[in-house]
Amino acid sequence: MTRVITLTTDFGARDHFVAEMKGVILSINPRATIVDITHDVEKFNVVHGAFVLACAYKWFPRGTIHVVVVDPGVGTSRRAILVETERYYFVGPDNGVLAPAAARDGVRAVYDVSSFREWEVSTTFHGRDIFAPVAARLSLGVPPSSLGRRVSEFVMLDIFRASSSNGVVEGRVVHVDSFGNVITSIDMSHVRRAGFSYGDVLDVQVGRARLRLRFLPAYGFAERGEALALVNSEGFFEIAINASSAASALGVKVGDPVVARRA
Amino acid sequence: MTRVITLTTDFGARDHFVAEMKGVILSINPRATIVDITHDVEKFNVVHGAFVLACAYKWFPRGTIHVVVVDPGVGTSRRAILVETERYYFVGPDNGVLAPAAARDGVRAVYDVSSFREWEVSTTFHGRDIFAPVAARLSLGVPPSSLGRRVSEFVMLDIFRASSSNGVVEGRVVHVDSFGNVITSIDMSHVRRAGFSYGDVLDVQVGRARLRLRFLPAYGFAERGEALALVNSEGFFEIAINASSAASALGVKVGDPVVARRA
Amino acid sequence: MTRVITLTTDFGARDHFVAEMKGVILSINPRATIVDITHDVEKFNVVHGAFVLACAYKWFPRGTIHVVVVDPGVGTSRRAILVETERYYFVGPDNGVLAPAAARDGVRAVYDVSSFREWEVSTTFHGRDIFAPVAARLSLGVPPSSLGRRVSEFVMLDIFRASSSNGVVEGRVVHVDSFGNVITSIDMSHVRRAGFSYGDVLDVQVGRARLRLRFLPAYGFAERGEALALVNSEGFFEIAINASSAASALGVKVGDPVVARRA
Repeated sequence: MTRVITLTTDFGARDHFVAEMKGVILSINPRATIVDITHDVEKFNVVHGAFVLACAYKWFPRGTIHVVVVDPGVGTSRRAILVETERYYFVGPDNGVLAPAAARDGVRAVYDVSSFREWEVSTTFHGRDIFAPVAARLSLGVPPSSLGRRVSEFVMLDIFRASSSNGVVEGRVVHVDSFGNVITSIDMSHVRRAGFSYGDVLDVQVGRARLRLRFLPAYGFAERGEALALVNSEGFFEIAINASSAASALGVKVGDPVVARRA
Repeated sequence: MTRVITLTTDFGARDHFVAEMKGVILSINPRATIVDITHDVEKFNVVHGAFVLACAYKWFPRGTIHVVVVDPGVGTSRRAILVETERYYFVGPDNGVLAPAAARDGVRAVYDVSSFREWEVSTTFHGRDIFAPVAARLSLGVPPSSLGRRVSEFVMLDIFRASSSNGVVEGRVVHVDSFGNVITSIDMSHVRRAGFSYGDVLDVQVGRARLRLRFLPAYGFAERGEALALVNSEGFFEIAINASSAASALGVKVGDPVVARRA
Repeated sequence: MTRVITLTTDFGARDHFVAEMKGVILSINPRATIVDITHDVEKFNVVHGAFVLACAYKWFPRGTIHVVVVDPGVGTSRRAILVETERYYFVGPDNGVLAPAAARDGVRAVYDVSSFREWEVSTTFHGRDIFAPVAARLSLGVPPSSLGRRVSEFVMLDIFRASSSNGVVEGRVVHVDSFGNVITSIDMSHVRRAGFSYGDVLDVQVGRARLRLRFLPAYGFAERGEALALVNSEGFFEIAINASSAASALGVKVGDPVVARRA
């Protein structure tokens, strides 16, 4: 069976770790299609991994198996899990990294795959020894119930908390992308409730920075070097500077509080 | 149909943008073979993107679909285009990034695909919402004329201007590769017209640097740390230092003028 | 025939070099499955390339063709070789980069493919002009003897020298991974001979640093920020700091001597 398996890790591109996971998958299912989401999740940063997955997962074909390895607790008692959702499978450590994506898609069942054995399992690399072979077996059509024991709970992680009322939205910075755009936990529904329209002038507090800017449809509507707010392609409220890095200019980092108010 | 789709962007490897494009392509054509050219084009640098594409495109199988997203004007009135050439298809923004490669291969037809809709199009991510689905539909055999409206012109970009006469070549720096090699717009035909032979000593001006070096067949013919000029594997005149970075040593950057004269 | 071809180079992800190799492979065998091991081998560092390959090669399906291009001598008289081992093929320059992996798998035959011609060969990019097409032809079932001339020797490189006796192991740093973990040439067999048990306290000298730490099963068994020694997922003795970079903290680099002694 041809099926897509995606990989999201904090392993970086320089080492052999990701390649070993791919070798394992292709050894078990030579016809698997493997796609990298990213291997540059900030080391050990479960929230960053969860954010990237929660953005990307839904663009893949139904039945795609999403494997995530951001796993500071590897080798300890943290569980390895497989989550079956409405349209996908998620495989990784039970530390919350799978939770936002799985919750958004709708959880159907959770399996503890900690005891899965393809071969002797190392204490430091479950990505290769558990998650990759579980995903590969799944891609061959092996049912989840043969790969682990059904459980009723898994570690939740809520990274998208936000609120809004007429003329104001509040949330937190959840990501700074490689362009320096500042992505917040505030989604489209909050922006609608606040009643912002294109062209509105907003007073924004983000971390320690305070600035006045326009709410616009896209980067190119601002002057070069002008700050703007927009709803990005994932549906999140974002602070940007056209053709420059807002995060550097504003000294913003993940976790900083954000408030935007119509001026 | 199995067909190759290549991706060239300035999205970097850290974010989820590239993965979403791949998810979209595989959702439409599960049998597409997707190859990354690079995602580390310098942010918003259309000339850099155009150079990388102009080098790489011709090594792919006939019928390959090359998608490029270096797109500072996304969301504004710039057009999205599909260019059919003698052997390939090129899909991307109409800002010149496709032009050098398409012109070299021989343009047969240009289509405006700005109005293509697979779903509601975001204002900031046409890579995912227009270019990727256009490429995927094309890879399924959908004819270009069903994907857009034929137009007669597109934005040209000439990055390979150079000249030569007996004993001298002139051009500009078009790229600095990750080894620090300085690639110029001067191609094989100019070097032939100048009459340079292996072993010739050349006086070279590049940016503010002046140096005397030998014209040699390959890096390994120079001493370790010796500067040399050569015709590289793409057929371009290049200034290098064996086992070191010429760009750092000479303080050279893209756009700097280059003159090389037989001593 | 569908067969896996892996690529390991020092080309980086920014340039078009890797993409051209992939284009060449897919032009010859459209059904090849290409997997990147890494393109971030330190420039010209044959030992680093050899280490990464020696870790990763064995996780791929039998018959996989491993191509390596870390090739400071390209264009000079160094040979291009194809090594057939018990389970794999290795293709690359004859500078030792293939040797540790090939030796571990068991060498069956070595072929000099320097004279292989798919087209006119450039002097600077044998990765594209020799190694990639040799690998692609091999993946189509062409026998090695049709691709080159059988030879009896190739350049050896021994990167895994180490020794041990009761209570002590000695070796060298062979790699620092992207987490800052310090991987040594000391393997499982030496650790067994030394008789180390989990929980043992060790006095470690690595480069100029001296420290006392515990030998543990996995990172997560140490406190956050605590140094530890472990046998990693490749079976090598490793010095690490839980959730931090041991290499930075200790000022360690590849090649530094390592001695660990039970306290």
